[in-house]
Amino acid sequence: MMSAMGNPTNIFWHECAVGKAERQKLINQQGCVVWITGLSGSGKSTLACSLNRELHSRGKLSYVLDGDNLRHGLNKNLGFSPEDRTENIRRVGEVAKLFADAGLICIASLISPYSKDRDACRAMLTDANFIEVFLNMPLEVCEGRDSKGLYKLARSGKIKGFTGIDDPYEPPLNCEIKIEQENGVCPTPCDMAGQVVSYLDVNGFLHA
Amino acid sequence: MMSAMGNPTNIFWHECAVGKAERQKLINQQGCVVWITGLSGSGKSTLACSLNRELHSRGKLSYVLDGDNLRHGLNKNLGFSPEDRTENIRRVGEVAKLFADAGLICIASLISPYSKDRDACRAMLTDANFIEVFLNMPLEVCEGRDSKGLYKLARSGKIKGFTGIDDPYEPPLNCEIKIEQENGVCPTPCDMAGQVVSYLDVNGFLHA
Repeated sequence: MMSAMGNPTNIFWHECAVGKAERQKLINQQGCVVWITGLSGSGKSTLACSLNRELHSRGKLSYVLDGDNLRHGLNKNLGFSPEDRTENIRRVGEVAKLFADAGLICIASLISPYSKDRDACRAMLTDANFIEVFLNMPLEVCEGRDSKGLYKLARSGKIKGFTGIDDPYEPPLNCEIKIEQENGVCPTPCDMAGQVVSYLDVNGFLHA
Repeated sequence: MMSAMGNPTNIFWHECAVGKAERQKLINQQGCVVWITGLSGSGKSTLACSLNRELHSRGKLSYVLDGDNLRHGLNKNLGFSPEDRTENIRRVGEVAKLFADAGLICIASLISPYSKDRDACRAMLTDANFIEVFLNMPLEVCEGRDSKGLYKLARSGKIKGFTGIDDPYEPPLNCEIKIEQENGVCPTPCDMAGQVVSYLDVNGFLHA
């Protein structure tokens, strides 16, 4: 099946006989995007891994799109200019959308500091299938960890435009899940993953 | 886990606890890329759909990356210049690689006329996981179908650089599967899909 779209470049759209619903039924889950945003060092990759592990132990198929890792592949021709950052996030959003359409629980882990970029990704999916997780850790905590040594470089001026130091992080206003310290204590990776899994469970994503 | 790579831009690589082998075990199949190449009108989308259907009926999770469809999303900022065509195929290759890593049988359907672009995608994966399917239909047959009306436009000069008309198609020399007419008769969609499924079966992709 094919339809011409209102597009001057003669690109057609092909509908395929097997759709998202059928794939979901096959693997008994619902495809969606879990979008983890937060400062460098806030624990995004840690949460992504922990969540991936927990979902796998429940027999669910998930896949992590890590912003850093993708810069070695799909996004290796992008730098850190504002336009390139936006394009970086756009591509990850498009790929995450494909994974969700394939039926997977796609875990995207990127600083994604600007609301407009995150909202553009949300707009690619239906609201219900885009689950924004804000890892709301204080800058001092993230900088204190500095596991990659990047804050040090940013403070000394060796990296410019570093989120939280000399470039803004715009916190989500309407995220689905917010993960924070409690009484000054950071949640464990298991706690964080548990919070997301509960959300997925309650909202029906863990069954077709 | 994290390692600094020999990269001046401070991008790290995160290893995740759940790997390809575990995902494959979960869904009892082996992730790979089935790359369908051929002229416009050779039947790539038809084969992709038919193959997707046949795999689904066997309980296998597959997903189609259609070159035309992706030009409405991930690749919508690309045109048809030689550089843009190469980038178009590179991105599809990178995404196909992610799907294969996720454990899916990823069916990529693109004209992909140049050997070097296809070979670059092959090089992203191991040889064994890149299955190149050459839909070797004569130009007259493809042009005779002209289901999108594109050959007509190309012949009249309204589209420039059209593969097979005024831009070359470089046939694969070492593809894993070649699909052709027999005694002047085109194989049915089922026959074509069957040929690919047999290959996948014999080579162990349909079990973990």
